[in-house]
Amino acid sequence: MIEPVADLPSSLEPLLERFREGKVTALARAISVVENERTGFQALLHRVLSAGPRAARVGFTGPPGAGKSSLLAGMAAAYRRQDERVGVVAVDPTSPFSGGALLGDRIRMNDLATDPGIFIRSMATRGSLGGLATTTKEVLDLIDAFGIERVLVETVGVGQTELEITAAADTVVVVLVPESGDGIQAMKAGLMEIADIFVINKADRPGADRLVKEIRQAMHLRAGSALKDVPAHHGVDLSRVVAKRRSRDVALETGTWTIPVLKTVAQTGEGVDGLLDAVSRHREWMAETSELVLRRRARAGTRIRDVVDRELRRVAWKSPSVQAGLEDGLDRIAKGSATPYSVAGAILEGLLGSRASR
Amino acid sequence: MIEPVADLPSSLEPLLERFREGKVTALARAISVVENERTGFQALLHRVLSAGPRAARVGFTGPPGAGKSSLLAGMAAAYRRQDERVGVVAVDPTSPFSGGALLGDRIRMNDLATDPGIFIRSMATRGSLGGLATTTKEVLDLIDAFGIERVLVETVGVGQTELEITAAADTVVVVLVPESGDGIQAMKAGLMEIADIFVINKADRPGADRLVKEIRQAMHLRAGSALKDVPAHHGVDLSRVVAKRRSRDVALETGTWTIPVLKTVAQTGEGVDGLLDAVSRHREWMAETSELVLRRRARAGTRIRDVVDRELRRVAWKSPSVQAGLEDGLDRIAKGSATPYSVAGAILEGLLGSRASR
Repeated sequence: MIEPVADLPSSLEPLLERFREGKVTALARAISVVENERTGFQALLHRVLSAGPRAARVGFTGPPGAGKSSLLAGMAAAYRRQDERVGVVAVDPTSPFSGGALLGDRIRMNDLATDPGIFIRSMATRGSLGGLATTTKEVLDLIDAFGIERVLVETVGVGQTELEITAAADTVVVVLVPESGDGIQAMKAGLMEIADIFVINKADRPGADRLVKEIRQAMHLRAGSALKDVPAHHGVDLSRVVAKRRSRDVALETGTWTIPVLKTVAQTGEGVDGLLDAVSRHREWMAETSELVLRRRARAGTRIRDVVDRELRRVAWKSPSVQAGLEDGLDRIAKGSATPYSVAGAILEGLLGSRASR
Repeated sequence: MIEPVADLPSSLEPLLERFREGKVTALARAISVVENERTGFQALLHRVLSAGPRAARVGFTGPPGAGKSSLLAGMAAAYRRQDERVGVVAVDPTSPFSGGALLGDRIRMNDLATDPGIFIRSMATRGSLGGLATTTKEVLDLIDAFGIERVLVETVGVGQTELEITAAADTVVVVLVPESGDGIQAMKAGLMEIADIFVINKADRPGADRLVKEIRQAMHLRAGSALKDVPAHHGVDLSRVVAKRRSRDVALETGTWTIPVLKTVAQTGEGVDGLLDAVSRHREWMAETSELVLRRRARAGTRIRDVVDRELRRVAWKSPSVQAGLEDGLDRIAKGSATPYSVAGAILEGLLGSRASR
């Protein structure tokens, strides 16, 4: 049975009810159901997402140790003072060699963690370094659907998967530090295409003003330059996401949204108010233009692709005839009468039949 | 048409002929065809891989800056002195923030690069940090099929994707340096499961002997411990690959293959002979037991899965009816009458029809 359109299993109905009643334990439980891909998890998502996205989602990306978590904690505290609920998701890739997390500044929200108005989830990723697995994006959706007004998500940017943050957040904050290299480099790396707001954190260190200047120069250089070489990966066609972003670039060029380059010292809280203000202005701008609609549409498109690809894999490999074809194929490869490509071709013909030639 | 079983396009026939004649330019061109997934690339792979794998493949993984490239260059030079041809593939993930490669010690083979007996390919990865994309593994196969006797592949181990090196190499060398943390940590991270040979490089630095001792202790501790928590990603079920490796563990316990822990100083060449000897002994051991056959079978299984998953995605998203269903679904989501899950479900039903419920 195709999972996404299946009925919700009756075992998950009480959970759905408690989720809709706003029980935090139900949110935590729903996340666990999604993370473990339990039977019916997609039916559950379908049910809770029917109202569409509502939360204001801000994504933070930047190199390890840039102070993303401290900034995020400062923002969360400020939203709490406005009595808004905050969801925080930290995507935390680990290294087998250091044993430690690459997110140099893990979520440091101990003061906040006891606040029932804050929901924190740290997700260890393996294999998709700093990138956002479909599951992670589904967890963000659950937090959104639960009615939490502010969703903050943090990824470490290595391996260029940080571009995927555009598939998860409405507003992308790129956090750099004076030592993280020059603005031209950031432009080359595609960060200009994803940043709605630049933050130079640890701005009390030498080189901060120079970096601000370089980024501003790079933004001017970029005006009119062609978008190129956007990677596609994990089945997510990022060029589509980033291309949507180009509507923002046009707006930028007509002066509607100018990417601010802010200076902060997250440790002391300096500049956090300015960041809050910039996020708020960006949200207003998106609401006034068609930008928010476009971004949500791009995000939905990415999700559809992710879900279809995931389900195709699942349907394929759970099939007993495919399993048998695989084992038989391996025997034939060992005998030299097949290659992985001819075996894959035979499996695909069995799965898709005449549909493949349409 | 299902690509893997399609006929070779006539435009690629001259390339295949020159490849079989051993023209290095044809190898380079074939790699480019595969990297760009040009029409018929899988048919080309099927043709050249029909003879099965022959090369001795050694994979190197370890933290950035451990000296993997220097070790690899030393080994390549030694093989050249024996008049064997060497293929080198460096998988080089980049960071958008540093602009630089994470492979702290990029291939430093300038002296060797002019040697026609050495074929070097550096592959920048995006998104799959340190992990091995299917394309990368296909490039390794091309080099193998070309008749190059020794294939050396280097990945940087971050995000735990280094486990994927077991899906590419016959012999896995894990390179650590005294400063890269303790042996217990390495065991926890699953490195014990993948290493055939441990190398402590920069062994002239303090702490080298301590690290050797810790790794040996960790290996003894591990004896009899259960394999757990092997990640699955990129559609590759690594637990299957690693589980195959457990046959090696059994052998280890019966004393057939003892994982050596070697000390090297790659910069001066110290210990490289010992590493060559260990690689050679490991290969003999694999040939004498069923290990090489098992590993190649596991690798073929992973490849079949990769190819099927890739082709399922391709067939799905090139279909005009799927594209139309996607656009229509996005409109319905915007109106609040659908979710990504119901749209994905409808697309899947169109693709798989009744096959899905088998």
